[in-house]
Amino acid sequence: MSSAPSNGGGGGPCGACKFLRRKCVKGCIFAPYFDSDQGTAHFAAVHKVFGASNASKLLHRIPAHKRLDAVVTLCYEALARARDPVYGCVGHIFTLQQQVN
Amino acid sequence: MSSAPSNGGGGGPCGACKFLRRKCVKGCIFAPYFDSDQGTAHFAAVHKVFGASNASKLLHRIPAHKRLDAVVTLCYEALARARDPVYGCVGHIFTLQQQVN
Repeated sequence: MSSAPSNGGGGGPCGACKFLRRKCVKGCIFAPYFDSDQGTAHFAAVHKVFGASNASKLLHRIPAHKRLDAVVTLCYEALARARDPVYGCVGHIFTLQQQVN
Repeated sequence: MSSAPSNGGGGGPCGACKFLRRKCVKGCIFAPYFDSDQGTAHFAAVHKVFGASNASKLLHRIPAHKRLDAVVTLCYEALARARDPVYGCVGHIFTLQQQVN
């Protein structure tokens, strides 16, 4: 995620389009959230777990002002699933539930 | 998820193949975990969030004896994302973390 959007407006592709090796068009749904540096690695995890198409559809379905939160949680889930393919972030939930009980 | 596998061996398609409207072949990776009843609804959620191909690849990458746990956590994540498209199950993590702190 980045606070410096790269929306294909002359600054090169965003991290998602860089990963997907495609032209980053104006209005790219991923550009505001995935820069061409760390955003590429984050998007790779999201792509592996959810798929670019599913992630895009999800973001399109929710209001623009909530999309950053959605991207943060998608990245969190994707990175957790990369680290722990069996439990993913649900492993964190089990651990926290044990601490609460 | 079901304890009564439907592996395409004469008992009709599993819930995943029923949802995907495809023939459920012997050795179907989804059949042991998605029956043709409730499993179809669970698989629909997994399909919408992760995609059938990504879920299949994930299951193939992990040992058979850990796949049920993986399916349970995938369904958990998928159903949470269906209920809360912005935060998904990460919303549960935030809530639990507040209770722990």
